[in-house]
Amino acid sequence: MSSIVNKYLQTPTEVGVVAVGFSGGQQKDGVDIAPQALIDSGLLTTLRDDLNYTIHHDGVVHTYTKLFPTSDPPLHVSGAKMPMLKPQTVSNATEALSSQVYEHAKEGRLVLTLGGDHSIAVGSISGVAKAVRERLDKEIAVIWVDAHADINSPQTSGSGNIHGMPVSYLCGFSSAPAENPSVFGWLEKNHLINPKKLVYIALRDVDFGEKKILRENGIKAFSMHDVDKHGIGKVMEMALEYVGDSPVHLSFDVDALDPMWAPSTGTPVRGGLTLREGDYICECVHETGLLVAMDLVEVNPNIGPRDGVDGVLGAAETVRAGSSLVRCALGESLL
Amino acid sequence: MSSIVNKYLQTPTEVGVVAVGFSGGQQKDGVDIAPQALIDSGLLTTLRDDLNYTIHHDGVVHTYTKLFPTSDPPLHVSGAKMPMLKPQTVSNATEALSSQVYEHAKEGRLVLTLGGDHSIAVGSISGVAKAVRERLDKEIAVIWVDAHADINSPQTSGSGNIHGMPVSYLCGFSSAPAENPSVFGWLEKNHLINPKKLVYIALRDVDFGEKKILRENGIKAFSMHDVDKHGIGKVMEMALEYVGDSPVHLSFDVDALDPMWAPSTGTPVRGGLTLREGDYICECVHETGLLVAMDLVEVNPNIGPRDGVDGVLGAAETVRAGSSLVRCALGESLL
Amino acid sequence: MSSIVNKYLQTPTEVGVVAVGFSGGQQKDGVDIAPQALIDSGLLTTLRDDLNYTIHHDGVVHTYTKLFPTSDPPLHVSGAKMPMLKPQTVSNATEALSSQVYEHAKEGRLVLTLGGDHSIAVGSISGVAKAVRERLDKEIAVIWVDAHADINSPQTSGSGNIHGMPVSYLCGFSSAPAENPSVFGWLEKNHLINPKKLVYIALRDVDFGEKKILRENGIKAFSMHDVDKHGIGKVMEMALEYVGDSPVHLSFDVDALDPMWAPSTGTPVRGGLTLREGDYICECVHETGLLVAMDLVEVNPNIGPRDGVDGVLGAAETVRAGSSLVRCALGESLL
Ligand SMILES: [Mn+2]
Ligand SMILES: [Mn+2]
Ligand SMILES: [Mn+2]
Ligand SMILES: [Mn+2]
Ligand SMILES: [Mn+2]
Ligand SMILES: [Mn+2]
Repeated sequence: MSSIVNKYLQTPTEVGVVAVGFSGGQQKDGVDIAPQALIDSGLLTTLRDDLNYTIHHDGVVHTYTKLFPTSDPPLHVSGAKMPMLKPQTVSNATEALSSQVYEHAKEGRLVLTLGGDHSIAVGSISGVAKAVRERLDKEIAVIWVDAHADINSPQTSGSGNIHGMPVSYLCGFSSAPAENPSVFGWLEKNHLINPKKLVYIALRDVDFGEKKILRENGIKAFSMHDVDKHGIGKVMEMALEYVGDSPVHLSFDVDALDPMWAPSTGTPVRGGLTLREGDYICECVHETGLLVAMDLVEVNPNIGPRDGVDGVLGAAETVRAGSSLVRCALGESLL
Repeated sequence: MSSIVNKYLQTPTEVGVVAVGFSGGQQKDGVDIAPQALIDSGLLTTLRDDLNYTIHHDGVVHTYTKLFPTSDPPLHVSGAKMPMLKPQTVSNATEALSSQVYEHAKEGRLVLTLGGDHSIAVGSISGVAKAVRERLDKEIAVIWVDAHADINSPQTSGSGNIHGMPVSYLCGFSSAPAENPSVFGWLEKNHLINPKKLVYIALRDVDFGEKKILRENGIKAFSMHDVDKHGIGKVMEMALEYVGDSPVHLSFDVDALDPMWAPSTGTPVRGGLTLREGDYICECVHETGLLVAMDLVEVNPNIGPRDGVDGVLGAAETVRAGSSLVRCALGESLL
Repeated sequence: MSSIVNKYLQTPTEVGVVAVGFSGGQQKDGVDIAPQALIDSGLLTTLRDDLNYTIHHDGVVHTYTKLFPTSDPPLHVSGAKMPMLKPQTVSNATEALSSQVYEHAKEGRLVLTLGGDHSIAVGSISGVAKAVRERLDKEIAVIWVDAHADINSPQTSGSGNIHGMPVSYLCGFSSAPAENPSVFGWLEKNHLINPKKLVYIALRDVDFGEKKILRENGIKAFSMHDVDKHGIGKVMEMALEYVGDSPVHLSFDVDALDPMWAPSTGTPVRGGLTLREGDYICECVHETGLLVAMDLVEVNPNIGPRDGVDGVLGAAETVRAGSSLVRCALGESLL
C-alpha cells in the first residue's frame, strides 16, 4: 500500500480496469492481445496482492467487434493527403470505451486502461475528462509519454492511421468531418482537454506538420534531447511544475521506451527512455498524489525479436516493462 | 600507480587478497568458481603490473570445506518463517575468513576479498572492523552497493539463505540464535559496524521486512530511484559526504549492475546500474583516499546467457565487469 | 532546414562531401568500405531531401591508391619503440585529402568527411584550418569525440599505427621525421591547430604516454568519468564554453559510442557514450552555429557481431548510428 495521499480520488485504493483488445487505429495485428498478455503476466494480481488495490474488472478483454460497422471504407476528408482508415470502427470503439471509463471515474476510482493501440486514448481520456469535470469541476492535465506526438489531424496525417491522431481530437483541434459527421460525432465539449494542460515526454519522432501544431498552440513538450540535457530528474520536476495541481491522466505509450527495453511495439524508435527512466516518470507521477487515470498502450507481443537481450522473448520483455510502468504509477516503490 | 594519497593504510601499495570459493549462503552452484575466473581473467596481474600493487596472496581459492560440519540441518529459529540454511557451514567459513582478512588489515594493507556469495561479508567486514579499531581506534564506514539490502534477520527472511542476512549480523541486529549459539557465536563486539556508518547504493529489490528495518534504524540508502533522480554524480557526492572521513569498506555485489552488463549472477534484478555508473562509484571511492577494503561478490559464471550483447559469453562479460569494478576502486582511472 | 544561423559559413546550406575509403592508418580491412555503406544507407539523400542541403560531392569514394608508393616499409624513427606503419601511404593520402577539403572550405561551405580510419583527420582538419585562416583570419577549434586521444607521437606509440597519431601531427607536437622528411613533410604552419583550442569528449582508453602529453600541454579533456559525474548536458556546456566563438571542426570517431550502439569499429572500448549522448553532442554543436566541418570515422562494417541487440546486423546498427550523428550535427532535431 502506497503512503502517498491521493488528492482527487474518492476511493484511492480502488482501481477500475478496462482491458481494450483493440488494434483498429493502426495496421499491425497483435496489439489487441496485449491486455491479456499483461494480465497473464500477473499485473492485476500484483496490484491486488502486493499493492493492496481493490480491482474492479469485468474479466473481459473488450474487442467491441459487435460495434464494428459492416463496412468501413477509408474516409477521404477534405484537404487530406491520406484517407482516414477504419474511421467508424475507431469512433464506435472509443465511444464505448469512453462510457466504460467514465463509469469508473465518476465513482472516484483510479482508472487503468490497458490497450490496444493509442487511438483508444480518445475513449479513455474523454471519459476521465468528463467525469472529473462533473465530480470535481476541474480540467484534467494529460501527461503523454510517447516517442510520437499523436497529434496529427486527418489533414496532416501521412498514413491515415488514427492512432496518430488521438490528441488532435481530444484537444478539439479536429472534430467530426463534414464527409461523415458520425465519425467522432459523439465527442462533446466536456470530453475534451485543455491543450495548455497537456505535456509530452520522450518525443523523438514528430512529423513536420505536428511540429507546427505543437509550436502554434504553445504545447509543452520535453523531447529526448531535453532528457539528455537535463536528466530525467529535472525534466520531471519541470513537467510536474507545469501540471500544477490538476488531476492527472497519464497516457503511456510503451514505444516511449527504447527498443532495447521494449522491442515489441508497432512503431519503435531508437534513442528512447531506459526502463529506469520510464519507471521514474511513473514513480514521480504517483508521488504527486494527482493521478486519476493511466493508459498503457502499444505493447504488441507479435512484434519484435524472438530473443531479447537476456535471452528472453522480446514480447515477454516488453510485457514486463509495461507491467513495471503500471506498477510504478500505482505506487510500487523501491524503498 | 594512483596519485591519490590513502589516509589510513600503512602500506597503501600493498594489497592482501583473499579468494573465497564459497557458495553456502545461497543455493546456486557456480558462485564458488568466480574467484578463479576473476584471477584467470588477469585481475591480479593487472593490479601488479599496471597499478603497481604488491600482491599478498596465498595462491589458494579457499573453500573452507575442512571446516564444514558433517551435518548441517536447517536451523529453525524462534519467530522465523523459514529455517536458516547451512547455518554452521556459513558461520565456520566466515569465522575463518574474518581471521584471514584481519591478518592483512592489521598490517595496514588494503584488503581485497573475492567471493563467493555475499554471506562472506560477515567474515571480511568483521575482520576489517576489528583490525581498524585496533590499529586506528576508529569505526569503519561500509558502502554496500547491491540490488538488495541483505539485512534480513533469520526472522524476516523469506528464504533462509544467509546471503540475505550479512548486514543484520554485522550491525548486531541479529546474533547467535538461542537454538544454536555456535552459529555466529564467534562474532564479538569489535567485529561489528555502526549502522549509522552504513550507506547503500543501487537498491531496487528490498523485502517488506527489510524496508521496515532500514526505516526504523535510520539507515542511509540510495535506491535506483535516487540514481535516476539525481544522477550518479550527485548520489556519490551525498554518499561520500555521509561517510565523512571514516575508513571505508566497499562491499560490491555485482548484481548492483543491470543484468545487461552483469547477467551471470544468482539474483539478477532489472533496472540496475550501468557498468559506467558502477565504475564511477568505485572511482569516486578510490579518490577519497579512505578505502581500506573491498569485497567483490556474487559473480556466478555458471549462470546467464551463453552469449551476451557483444557475442561474448555472459559469464565472461560479468567477470570483466567485476574486474573493472575492482580496478577502478584500486586506482585505475581514465585520464 | 535548420533554423540555426551559422556564424562562419558563407553558404551554410551547401555541404562539400569527401568520401574517403582509406584504411592505411591501422590494420583492419573494412573501414575503407564505410563511406559507401553510409551513402547507401541514404545519408546524403537525407541531407538533401530532409535537411535541404545542396550537396557538393564528386560521386567518388577516394582510395588514393594511385598515390600509394610502390613500397612503403615500416619507418624506424629515433626514440620509438615501434616503427611507423605505412608512413608514406598515409602521408600521401592525407595530403591529397587536405587539398580536397580545403577547396570546399575556402568556398565557405560546410565540409563533411566520411572515413576511413582516423588518420585521415590529418588531411581534413589541416585543410579546414588553412582555409579558415585564409578566409576568416581565425584559428579553428577542434572537438574530438573519441574513446582514444589519438595523440601519440611516433615515439610514444605502442603500435606504430598512424590512426593513433593524427592529433600529434595536427598540433605540431610531431613533424616530418629526420629519417624520412617526406612523411608529413607537406604539413605547413597554417595547416596546424592550436592545442588550446582542442577539446576531447568521451575518452576512456588513453595510453600512459598520451596522458602525459595531455597533462603537460594543458589540453582540455572530458573523459567518460566526467560524463558520468556531470551528465552530458553539463559536459557540453563546459566544452562549448571552452571553445568560445571559434569556428568548430567536429571530428567524431564512432568508437566514442559504446559498443552496444556501435559494435562495428576497429578498436571498441566498453563504457562509452549512448547513442543518445552522441546525438546530443552533435545537436549541441549544431546549435552553436559555429560548425564549419565534421569528420565521421572508424565505422568498419566488416567487424562486429553478425546480429546486434535488435536482431539487426551490427554493421547496419553502426552505420545507422554514424548516419544519425552526422544528421544531428547538420541540423536534424527532435522538435
Ligand atoms: Mn508512439
Ligand atoms: Mn502513441
Ligand atoms: Mn544482491
Ligand atoms: Mn548482496
Ligand atoms: Mn577511437
Ligand atoms: Mn580516433
